[in-house]
Amino acid sequence: MEVELIIKSTWIVPVVPRATVLRDYAIIIHEKKILRILPQQEALDQYSARHIVQLDEHVLIPGLINSHCHASMALLRGAADDLPLHEWLQNRIWPLEQEFISRKFVVDGAELAIAEMIASGTTCFADMYFFPDEVAKTAISANMRVQLASPILDFPSVWAANADEYILKATQTHDQYRNSDLVSTAFGPHSLYTVSDDPLRKIRILADELDIPIHVHIHETKTEIQDSIKSFGISPLMRLKNLGLLTPRLVSVHCTHLMDHDIELLSAQGANVVHCPNSNMKLASGICNVSKLVHHGVNVALGTDGAASNNRLDMFGEMRAATLLAKVSTEDATSLPAYVALEMATIQGAKALGLEEKIGSLEPGKFADVVAVSLNDFNTLPINDPISHLVYGANSSQVSNVWIGGKSVMRHGDLLTLEKTKIINSALSWQEKIEKSESLA
Amino acid sequence: MEVELIIKSTWIVPVVPRATVLRDYAIIIHEKKILRILPQQEALDQYSARHIVQLDEHVLIPGLINSHCHASMALLRGAADDLPLHEWLQNRIWPLEQEFISRKFVVDGAELAIAEMIASGTTCFADMYFFPDEVAKTAISANMRVQLASPILDFPSVWAANADEYILKATQTHDQYRNSDLVSTAFGPHSLYTVSDDPLRKIRILADELDIPIHVHIHETKTEIQDSIKSFGISPLMRLKNLGLLTPRLVSVHCTHLMDHDIELLSAQGANVVHCPNSNMKLASGICNVSKLVHHGVNVALGTDGAASNNRLDMFGEMRAATLLAKVSTEDATSLPAYVALEMATIQGAKALGLEEKIGSLEPGKFADVVAVSLNDFNTLPINDPISHLVYGANSSQVSNVWIGGKSVMRHGDLLTLEKTKIINSALSWQEKIEKSESLA
Repeated sequence: MEVELIIKSTWIVPVVPRATVLRDYAIIIHEKKILRILPQQEALDQYSARHIVQLDEHVLIPGLINSHCHASMALLRGAADDLPLHEWLQNRIWPLEQEFISRKFVVDGAELAIAEMIASGTTCFADMYFFPDEVAKTAISANMRVQLASPILDFPSVWAANADEYILKATQTHDQYRNSDLVSTAFGPHSLYTVSDDPLRKIRILADELDIPIHVHIHETKTEIQDSIKSFGISPLMRLKNLGLLTPRLVSVHCTHLMDHDIELLSAQGANVVHCPNSNMKLASGICNVSKLVHHGVNVALGTDGAASNNRLDMFGEMRAATLLAKVSTEDATSLPAYVALEMATIQGAKALGLEEKIGSLEPGKFADVVAVSLNDFNTLPINDPISHLVYGANSSQVSNVWIGGKSVMRHGDLLTLEKTKIINSALSWQEKIEKSESLA
Repeated sequence: MEVELIIKSTWIVPVVPRATVLRDYAIIIHEKKILRILPQQEALDQYSARHIVQLDEHVLIPGLINSHCHASMALLRGAADDLPLHEWLQNRIWPLEQEFISRKFVVDGAELAIAEMIASGTTCFADMYFFPDEVAKTAISANMRVQLASPILDFPSVWAANADEYILKATQTHDQYRNSDLVSTAFGPHSLYTVSDDPLRKIRILADELDIPIHVHIHETKTEIQDSIKSFGISPLMRLKNLGLLTPRLVSVHCTHLMDHDIELLSAQGANVVHCPNSNMKLASGICNVSKLVHHGVNVALGTDGAASNNRLDMFGEMRAATLLAKVSTEDATSLPAYVALEMATIQGAKALGLEEKIGSLEPGKFADVVAVSLNDFNTLPINDPISHLVYGANSSQVSNVWIGGKSVMRHGDLLTLEKTKIINSALSWQEKIEKSESLA
């Protein structure tokens, strides 16, 4: 049979089955999807292809999934460091956003972010930011997969005037991309301290009707939890439960400072968690007890959050931070072994975004979102354990080739769907504007 | 005046003065040392040079100093993951070392480690391992700066039969390199549970005579501290004090689980600490309270430890881990700001190794150990803050040029004093041996 693409690689880590390393296998790709994965000799016997890619020193993995991001904030990278969350938001980020957010800011920021993400092996990201329609267009142009968690707030912004308008726009965005392969949608109410109960109830009903996820920042800081208990007598997670939002549709971002009963709640209700270790550490927000969540069967994915509180959009760095933080915070070096960290950055992310039939592992029938990582570098030699190296050894700069939906978007380190020079010049131009900003005075 | 080299760079972060970013300056280098740092136009007016290097999108920093390493363990990278320290040592590392350590293992491992370090901007490392003479030769051949913390143990190994022989060899190593620019020496008693009091007292006397540091693993785990209290009634740090070893000559590696009185002791005695955040997290050893140590005026440097418990030898990763861990563990996002993390990886390391007159900052009279980092990559754009980007944004792969003692050892990503292909082949050859090892069964 003639197919579009065969990728032959010394190692393949499909993620499903778990902790498996296939040696000298090939992936058969046709019409955007993975057809089969089989030993290289059988592949060549049974298939011919328009393109055959031979990767001798590489490991193929599923494209990494960044389950929580504010992509366009890449332009604010380095503009607000060494500050706690509430000061960071109120004294730096919100004033800067007030000054600069526009369609152009969002497009340019999203392009920069997508470039960084593809270059570091991310093939799908969940974005919660203004002008999601621009983010969608930018992603499609780059052949990047995105889940738009359309923002909802009580207060007005450049995007909408009130909660109802945010919700209306979210449903319109959903309609617009209902049949898209690359773009999926979700509701993205910011948090329980920025969105009141009525809009949240509406979102619950609409999410069920449209069958899409709901992303929310929840239990990000001790202050948030204490304020909730002071004002409502219960934790934010319990408020979510009472609103009927704690369901398998929920993507609970952050979840630090969880008590045992919070973990049991998440587990019983089948909600998803997105862990953002670097952001949580940088803002001193707290630690998400990932080991315990995983032990209780909760689906935990990984996310970078925005580049202004990380400051990278690098899922390799997120995997590494997640496992190291888990080990030291539980005082257990067996916590979150490498293959689990890799699952969190792939199949668990797919589950959280409701896309586990389509992405998250290298399996027949799924989209061919494939990343090749060269192991032929000093820091991943000797190749004593490819999965270990992906998490504990590899540098994201070792990502050499990326395919999304079977289309090559990076080859030997060169981006094919984005113009590097244009993105750099655009970033430098924004740098000049930001330097002069009074918000940084 | 005619000099050997002028490096012109858009940004220079000299580390001393602290938190300073020089714009459009140049470094004048002559006879291995920094002569001056001054604005580019004045540099060109006053000096001519055999070589002029123009770096337009780069920041120059002092070469990073890895203050604690077991370089040759790079060959064991990925051979022993997700295990706590004592099991890791006893069930994997010691059996593997028993099987494989030889002069060839040490040479090949050290070469691999030095290649990874230079490529990621490290220009000086402190090594504690067997056959330090081979490590020295390998480092000199690569033009890499090294402090040999010659190992001392109570029990025999390939290197020596008993404590006295270890100590004798350490003094011989010191004599051999007494006049070397690149190689400095120290005593490296492994720990208080592997070296008894008599040898420790001898080391103290000899270190004073030879005026060299003493590196020791100390307070690495709770178990070590509890055992010391059980057996001796006092903590390991207090034992060190009673032995007269808690002095400015001491390089105390790890220092997790410090009580307030431990911190006061370190501060009062002027001892140095080397913090190894990634290793401490990976082995779930504990957290070193760096913020408190720094607040009490203790000199705290950074180290990667060996690649088998990290698994990288990347000081950018160490800086990032140090600051993020400090912020979340103290619940204070202002802990260890970026410029302090950078100091820990440079000038504080130089102080710990007793080399602060020679390296650790870009200042006239010091060795020209200089690293250029390209900021023209997606993850460090916009360039809102170069120092922030070095710690929170940069990927070590952005290191483009490295000079050690004014000699170019890496140019545009290519190593000049090491043969990449030979190192890779050697690593792959060791990989085959390790794969077949019964120690991994």
